[in-house]
Amino acid sequence: MTRRDDMTRTSSGFFVSQEAPIHSDNPVPTPQASPPDILRCAYMELVVTDLAASREFYVDVLDLVVTEEDENTVYLRSMEEFIHHNLVLRQGPVAAVAAFSYRVRTPEDLDQAVAFYTELGCDVRRNPGGFTKGIGDSVRVTDPLGFPYEFFHDVLHVERLAWRYDLYTPGALVRLDHFNQVTPDVPRAVAFMQDLGFRVTEDIQDDEGTVYAAWMRRKPTVHDTAMTGGDGPRMHHVAFSTHEKHNILAICDKLGALRRSDAIERGPGRHGVSNAFYLYLRDPDGHRVEIYTQDYYTGDPDNPVVTWDVHDNQRRDWWGNPVVPSWYTEASLVLDLDGDPQPVVARTDSSEMAVTIGADGFSYTRASETSMPEYKLGNQL
Amino acid sequence: MTRRDDMTRTSSGFFVSQEAPIHSDNPVPTPQASPPDILRCAYMELVVTDLAASREFYVDVLDLVVTEEDENTVYLRSMEEFIHHNLVLRQGPVAAVAAFSYRVRTPEDLDQAVAFYTELGCDVRRNPGGFTKGIGDSVRVTDPLGFPYEFFHDVLHVERLAWRYDLYTPGALVRLDHFNQVTPDVPRAVAFMQDLGFRVTEDIQDDEGTVYAAWMRRKPTVHDTAMTGGDGPRMHHVAFSTHEKHNILAICDKLGALRRSDAIERGPGRHGVSNAFYLYLRDPDGHRVEIYTQDYYTGDPDNPVVTWDVHDNQRRDWWGNPVVPSWYTEASLVLDLDGDPQPVVARTDSSEMAVTIGADGFSYTRASETSMPEYKLGNQL
Amino acid sequence: MTRRDDMTRTSSGFFVSQEAPIHSDNPVPTPQASPPDILRCAYMELVVTDLAASREFYVDVLDLVVTEEDENTVYLRSMEEFIHHNLVLRQGPVAAVAAFSYRVRTPEDLDQAVAFYTELGCDVRRNPGGFTKGIGDSVRVTDPLGFPYEFFHDVLHVERLAWRYDLYTPGALVRLDHFNQVTPDVPRAVAFMQDLGFRVTEDIQDDEGTVYAAWMRRKPTVHDTAMTGGDGPRMHHVAFSTHEKHNILAICDKLGALRRSDAIERGPGRHGVSNAFYLYLRDPDGHRVEIYTQDYYTGDPDNPVVTWDVHDNQRRDWWGNPVVPSWYTEASLVLDLDGDPQPVVARTDSSEMAVTIGADGFSYTRASETSMPEYKLGNQL
Amino acid sequence: MTRRDDMTRTSSGFFVSQEAPIHSDNPVPTPQASPPDILRCAYMELVVTDLAASREFYVDVLDLVVTEEDENTVYLRSMEEFIHHNLVLRQGPVAAVAAFSYRVRTPEDLDQAVAFYTELGCDVRRNPGGFTKGIGDSVRVTDPLGFPYEFFHDVLHVERLAWRYDLYTPGALVRLDHFNQVTPDVPRAVAFMQDLGFRVTEDIQDDEGTVYAAWMRRKPTVHDTAMTGGDGPRMHHVAFSTHEKHNILAICDKLGALRRSDAIERGPGRHGVSNAFYLYLRDPDGHRVEIYTQDYYTGDPDNPVVTWDVHDNQRRDWWGNPVVPSWYTEASLVLDLDGDPQPVVARTDSSEMAVTIGADGFSYTRASETSMPEYKLGNQL
Repeated sequence: MTRRDDMTRTSSGFFVSQEAPIHSDNPVPTPQASPPDILRCAYMELVVTDLAASREFYVDVLDLVVTEEDENTVYLRSMEEFIHHNLVLRQGPVAAVAAFSYRVRTPEDLDQAVAFYTELGCDVRRNPGGFTKGIGDSVRVTDPLGFPYEFFHDVLHVERLAWRYDLYTPGALVRLDHFNQVTPDVPRAVAFMQDLGFRVTEDIQDDEGTVYAAWMRRKPTVHDTAMTGGDGPRMHHVAFSTHEKHNILAICDKLGALRRSDAIERGPGRHGVSNAFYLYLRDPDGHRVEIYTQDYYTGDPDNPVVTWDVHDNQRRDWWGNPVVPSWYTEASLVLDLDGDPQPVVARTDSSEMAVTIGADGFSYTRASETSMPEYKLGNQL
Repeated sequence: MTRRDDMTRTSSGFFVSQEAPIHSDNPVPTPQASPPDILRCAYMELVVTDLAASREFYVDVLDLVVTEEDENTVYLRSMEEFIHHNLVLRQGPVAAVAAFSYRVRTPEDLDQAVAFYTELGCDVRRNPGGFTKGIGDSVRVTDPLGFPYEFFHDVLHVERLAWRYDLYTPGALVRLDHFNQVTPDVPRAVAFMQDLGFRVTEDIQDDEGTVYAAWMRRKPTVHDTAMTGGDGPRMHHVAFSTHEKHNILAICDKLGALRRSDAIERGPGRHGVSNAFYLYLRDPDGHRVEIYTQDYYTGDPDNPVVTWDVHDNQRRDWWGNPVVPSWYTEASLVLDLDGDPQPVVARTDSSEMAVTIGADGFSYTRASETSMPEYKLGNQL
Repeated sequence: MTRRDDMTRTSSGFFVSQEAPIHSDNPVPTPQASPPDILRCAYMELVVTDLAASREFYVDVLDLVVTEEDENTVYLRSMEEFIHHNLVLRQGPVAAVAAFSYRVRTPEDLDQAVAFYTELGCDVRRNPGGFTKGIGDSVRVTDPLGFPYEFFHDVLHVERLAWRYDLYTPGALVRLDHFNQVTPDVPRAVAFMQDLGFRVTEDIQDDEGTVYAAWMRRKPTVHDTAMTGGDGPRMHHVAFSTHEKHNILAICDKLGALRRSDAIERGPGRHGVSNAFYLYLRDPDGHRVEIYTQDYYTGDPDNPVVTWDVHDNQRRDWWGNPVVPSWYTEASLVLDLDGDPQPVVARTDSSEMAVTIGADGFSYTRASETSMPEYKLGNQL
Repeated sequence: MTRRDDMTRTSSGFFVSQEAPIHSDNPVPTPQASPPDILRCAYMELVVTDLAASREFYVDVLDLVVTEEDENTVYLRSMEEFIHHNLVLRQGPVAAVAAFSYRVRTPEDLDQAVAFYTELGCDVRRNPGGFTKGIGDSVRVTDPLGFPYEFFHDVLHVERLAWRYDLYTPGALVRLDHFNQVTPDVPRAVAFMQDLGFRVTEDIQDDEGTVYAAWMRRKPTVHDTAMTGGDGPRMHHVAFSTHEKHNILAICDKLGALRRSDAIERGPGRHGVSNAFYLYLRDPDGHRVEIYTQDYYTGDPDNPVVTWDVHDNQRRDWWGNPVVPSWYTEASLVLDLDGDPQPVVARTDSSEMAVTIGADGFSYTRASETSMPEYKLGNQL
């Protein structure tokens, strides 16, 4: 990544630079095969241990639309979606992620995906009938980072309910926005994602070049997925968008009314990274769901990469509100293609939580000052 | 106050009852004199130690309107106000509150105020020319609880800028909403305020009848002032209203942009008590300012009093987000009529912070459950 | 009313003055009896010709809460209300208003009401059991202006659903805000309402002193009722409040989704008068309902009265959007106490519509200019 | 375009289908050369006749950011932009559009643009130093439809002010969203734009296949430009985005406060087409500016094309509010590359205004009903 000296400090305190190839001491080799042309993150398949409880959470509380369901599975979509689903809840023995699924531009991109991952020696499986209902020909792989990735093009169209304001609720979710993955070695992961055709939009570094997290996109938003440094492979969260900020507040209000406010893990708040307004919830299995709105257009090839200092207390919450420890430490297991949980490898680089709070860490509001009011100290947590 | 057995539990988890006389073991005697007919909280006079810094905070950051100013004093009002000021910043040696000022219905109510407080043996001073610019005949007292209260009717009218949308900023403050006072003995204070003509709208109790805080009104909102249990007399906060919730979020966003996010002490969030959306800031002297919007109409004489269980984790934040310790413990000194700080008397009743967090306390999301996710535990703080 | 010369022109283009007694050439005599102490407008009883259609409109479209219903009647309330109802829909042969109902402070105020209206020679009827369910001892009168007014104190309390965010919809109505009455002689009506204890907050005049409309309040908002000049007595509209502006937009969006956009008569927009954000709908019988949010506090006795020039094109819509003719000309019949429609008397003073649009009228955006872009011309309508 | 019989009627009343080649009786030939790879609409160059008045409108009223300015030119950008400008105001003798400018993916795309338009026999001019400040190598053409189009890649980066909430105003414009062009023969124009690489997202047709307007995109929103049937070539409007709906309302409120409400031509409202919230303003020269927020993602290759019936009264305003005649008839001249106004050719196909309002037209709220309340009748206008 770009060296801090080659970045430009903005008037907002972070740095900008042009995207650069990522150096990794332990890179995934770059395949000869071209990557598939990925359009966007499309859906997540979540294994849940109590389908009724999960259905209640996603349908009755979060108001996602049920496209279809059977005894073991619920297929859900957001209000503006026209493909069959953005989230699959599947009953299973262990809470985990079965697939991070991306839509590709053409049917032929599936051949590209097979070639790309096969060359990397990954477990690659193709199912012409699709792995979930509503989806046609699909490729699933366990990628070099250990994550179960899916690619598909063919999909059943369903009605886009964008204009059905009679069905909107105060906290209506309108789009799937992004995934977030936990991985021990962020530069290695980001370099691999660049090979897969992703562009970096933002990251968090320290001034010695340790990378704590990075955000990457295909569609021109801040991300389709992000890599968060930590023990992995694990799934950090899946994020849905609302139209406006008050919609996110309405979800909080409703959780309070349902006496389920303990589903709120962090927020609501304004992110530094992405500039979006956010809320983090935990579903009945502990899977983390972000509600998100209003990041910015990133589609130009020279879109400035934003780099945040890990000690900047406004990087993850622009208002400086503390990140709860669970947000750093807890995440969901991911499955291999046989449905078994992937082993979790410990991060060896510095931990963002450790360097920012507690005895060995520090955070600042203003780069020139080292102290903050007690109520802002991360080490209260 | 009403016994828990005589209250009705609502579907939202709190209780309602009709207002009842407050029992105090150590009551302030009820005067024979009728109290003045108070219209509303009107302004606070704040002593600040660095007028330029305070002016920058209230004018450049919070965008209050300067009605008038001189070397030692700044007179500020909100966008919908038509009286001269809602806040006076006065340079002084010790950060403190010089007056909680209320407007009364008629000039004659000042005579009532003199009689009422004189009968109670209070220090009572009347200034026909007013204690601050723009205000005419005024009475200041040190009340039986130790607070500097002011009453006035005559006041200079200035232009109500409600329609001047060219002057609005994203976080525009439109009204002074209420004061909040810290006092050691809440029932004693509330009983006295009832004698002064205030009506109780909400309170926080435990099931043994300890009262931790109470909210009281003259105008038909949830409060013109509140009594918060703690070492006192001190000033907990002064609150201004915005039109909508996004205005409050805009203030947070602006503080982030100014790299002053450390002025945010608590929130934003939804209160349980009052149902309002809120944010707490600390000014350069540490005076606490609340930004507040959308409570409910309370003007009927039989308006139900809402009682919250002190262990209900949604009482102070409907979303269950933790209250930072400083919010419980820190407050501003108040002055006597000679300008000297009032001595602070320790609270001897149970502390809300102690009974809700830490080893001796507990809070619940659902009354029937005693555990909460770790990220919701108050004792993280 | 105050003469234009004695008013102060504000920087927003309208005038302010102190409330003055209204001169009427044909006044209703001022009774010796004191008026009842009115708290607020409390509910309207609407006669509807197709109860099922009306129920669908108010319950399924506007999401008012059903407190109780039977074959012929539906009792509805808003989300923050704690009394039994704010609106009664009653099946009947002719669409009309059976009662404009106000709550009074004490049971004894009913005796005052009886004395006050009896002295005026009005038809006065008292029903100790109430005229509608949930309401106790009540007085109904046909007032000197021909309107059916009701006064009550005793009322069944129901749960205030303010915290039940699980029940809120995007366009949730939270309070009954005001009534609006059509009457031929506005000064006569306003002078009578002053005798009844109402305070004037705003009006529309021309520079010859013709009064086209006036707004009056008991609770400290801009109005509990207004008098609109026109053929009367008729009911112009009943208004409910939302929390925020987006709630009103959501009602429009929902009407579009239901293919009922033709229920939208005027707006949404920002009023000049009251500074509130508004929308006017027509129910299945043509009764007009306003949705309204965010006017200002008017509770001080010297609250400045705002006077708008009838030719100011921003007086009724701050954005200068045209008022549709139906809004000026159409209104609901009102009933006498026997349930028969009151005869409608024609207005003889100038018509606001006539003086502002068409060949004999004019409107301006800037007082100094007489022309407006064609798309702003009222005479397009 | 797709025949109505091959479309699917949605539950919202419009139709969906897959994009099909457009038939034109008088097509622009498809060039052999590949079109340039266009990223997005990037800026418009507007000729204004009173630069000071225009600067006041765009800078003081609409709060666009001045990147740079000189005696004859002002370069403006939106809050989230990182390229030099989104709007150029240039003093000139005749109010007109000098360029609709698009950014392309690579410098080499300029060669493609030259080849593409040269093959079509267009006037093509390349300026390695750019036609406006801040922009490098650029190609300008008069396209086959008569519009001045520009393509560039090289551009000066400036600070993206997205996080500078201290600079935001209540109506802050955050992005350039789209252009809208008036052309006599919509199918001919759309077919040409498809050759240029645009994708159709929505259109308005009648059941005989007359196309009244079409929306087309490069970036995955509803449009980068639209073709509106009418006398042309002319510029219908340029559109900027806000974050939320209340930001658009704030612009209206501010215009009212400035006594410039006559700049509001149409709206605010909710579009049927695009589902966005909108407002149309007229600048001091009569150039039309739209303020726009919250359309939907269109980036999948099989994104359903939405077709609206021209008689659907909710197609242009989801709430059924009337479109003012000026919106249909007035538009800005466009210039050739020598700076002379292009001659305007009359539309010969049916006029949308004529077929929807007035004696020869009709509109419906519900397809099955032919009458609407008088206040909804377009022929009031």
